[in-house]
Amino acid sequence: MKVVITGGTGFIGRMLAARILARGKLTGPSGTQAQIDELVLFDAVLPPSLPAPLTGHVKALSGDVADPSAIEGLIDRDDISVFHLASVVSAGAEQDFDLAMRVNLDGGRNILEACRKRKSTPRLVFTSSIAVFGAPGMGPRVDDLTKETPQTTYGITKAIGELLVNDYTRKGFLDGRSARLPTVIVRPGKPNKAASSFVSGVIREPLNGEPCHLPVGLDTIMPVLGYRSIVENLIRLHEAAGEAIGADRAVSFPSLDVSLSEMIAALGRAAAGRKLGPIEVRPEPAIARIVAGWPTGTGWAKAAALGLTAEPDIDTIIRAYIEDFLGN
Amino acid sequence: MKVVITGGTGFIGRMLAARILARGKLTGPSGTQAQIDELVLFDAVLPPSLPAPLTGHVKALSGDVADPSAIEGLIDRDDISVFHLASVVSAGAEQDFDLAMRVNLDGGRNILEACRKRKSTPRLVFTSSIAVFGAPGMGPRVDDLTKETPQTTYGITKAIGELLVNDYTRKGFLDGRSARLPTVIVRPGKPNKAASSFVSGVIREPLNGEPCHLPVGLDTIMPVLGYRSIVENLIRLHEAAGEAIGADRAVSFPSLDVSLSEMIAALGRAAAGRKLGPIEVRPEPAIARIVAGWPTGTGWAKAAALGLTAEPDIDTIIRAYIEDFLGN
Repeated sequence: MKVVITGGTGFIGRMLAARILARGKLTGPSGTQAQIDELVLFDAVLPPSLPAPLTGHVKALSGDVADPSAIEGLIDRDDISVFHLASVVSAGAEQDFDLAMRVNLDGGRNILEACRKRKSTPRLVFTSSIAVFGAPGMGPRVDDLTKETPQTTYGITKAIGELLVNDYTRKGFLDGRSARLPTVIVRPGKPNKAASSFVSGVIREPLNGEPCHLPVGLDTIMPVLGYRSIVENLIRLHEAAGEAIGADRAVSFPSLDVSLSEMIAALGRAAAGRKLGPIEVRPEPAIARIVAGWPTGTGWAKAAALGLTAEPDIDTIIRAYIEDFLGN
Repeated sequence: MKVVITGGTGFIGRMLAARILARGKLTGPSGTQAQIDELVLFDAVLPPSLPAPLTGHVKALSGDVADPSAIEGLIDRDDISVFHLASVVSAGAEQDFDLAMRVNLDGGRNILEACRKRKSTPRLVFTSSIAVFGAPGMGPRVDDLTKETPQTTYGITKAIGELLVNDYTRKGFLDGRSARLPTVIVRPGKPNKAASSFVSGVIREPLNGEPCHLPVGLDTIMPVLGYRSIVENLIRLHEAAGEAIGADRAVSFPSLDVSLSEMIAALGRAAAGRKLGPIEVRPEPAIARIVAGWPTGTGWAKAAALGLTAEPDIDTIIRAYIEDFLGN
């Protein structure tokens, strides 16, 4: 079978590709395990090269997710699964509404339509976000039954994506699953345009000996999950039986609800003597306004019932990052 | 100012146009009452003629809501308000998914974009539906805080419309309000493709001395509202202060939760000696499946706080229909 990962050369896309390569098999449209003979990472812009575990085993293909013919050409086999990760992120979408609509909404519809055109019923895993939640008066605690009242254009496009995945699945056009992700940590490299970028930064920059400027206060609580669990859970959600997910195909991913203070304390423990860069709060109202709308308490009963898991604590997440990206 | 009603030659559109004509004024984009000098009913297909109160006072214009240039030409003044009623209805959308996406989703986006292009911040009233609710396990009772898990393509497009109206409003592109309508009764004329068509039929057909075939059992409870209240409430929602509606611009309309048995009993009282056509239950599984997903208990605290109202009882709704459409 063929596997497509859109946004595939991004951080999660590459990690997911490596895990899928290592597995070698996934459940195909027929419902049985199938050998993967083609793995394509689709992205707007390709990096100069792919990291070692992927070289020679995957195809990287650049294109515009908002171009229907490009997506039809990408989803060109009946024995196929798609992980649709491509997205304009939160602060980026606030800056450019039209781009967010074009990439997230029109692009998402192109993916759905291309799957629908296949003779099979392809499995599709769509990455939604906890940013679908949060309006004044909705309360800080969210779960799979909480009304989605996004306060960002990013969140709006994700909520719409969940609705469309549900309907395309109900109609039998495809077999969709939406992964409602919390903030993913620890992202390596540079800060990105996600409003939540600082949550990785508060761990990554000090470990690199660099200063970290936090746009929000230390008592800010964020639901987070380590990228290792994110990747495993995306695969588990792909493999889950559709009936076990139910009519609402969206699943709130597991998360740990931790404050920035707790993250910093865990960083001190996990750093094991490394010299850490300084952390300083420098309030940024535009970011703080977005973050204030996000939930601080999460329930994930459906994910747990499907066998999805979280790291036991934040220390484990930080140690994994040190192991994967900083070596000894 | 100019007022546009899409789906304007339909039943609610015509009633709404007559009420707006009688008022003569609405709150314009500047926030103050303005005289209406242009009222346009936009629709896919126009009737041969408009009823008496509208003749000579309104323009009827045919066009495709999914055609961006047609909609830009329609929403062509800065001092404007739009009532966006045009929609493929429930059973119709189940039969033709692509048409529903084209008219309800693409068409809705065209309306939003045309309002955004104005130099002002036009008020927009979008008619959503109680069909945004209803998935296995979500329970029969719904209100403004209930998660929207539509089980029809119609409901999906309405839920998406609410999300888009919220975001266009949040961004300051327009001043939107979504009216989440229950089943509107008593619609005159012939049955339509709405899965709820029988709820008007059970009153209308017997009063016309014709037989009524019910596709669902007599114990089926439907949240309903009379068309007079629907029209008044659409205007009240248009006139409400945006801050009073809040960040979620969707408002569950008032409704009466009544069983078909109760409607038939009220019909007997209101008919006042008229000879009624026979009512017979003839189960239709396709309709029953759609209706089974709909809520049977409604909360409408936000609507009440905004001054929206319901008829006191079902008898009042039936008497109004007799008065408006059957005379003596």
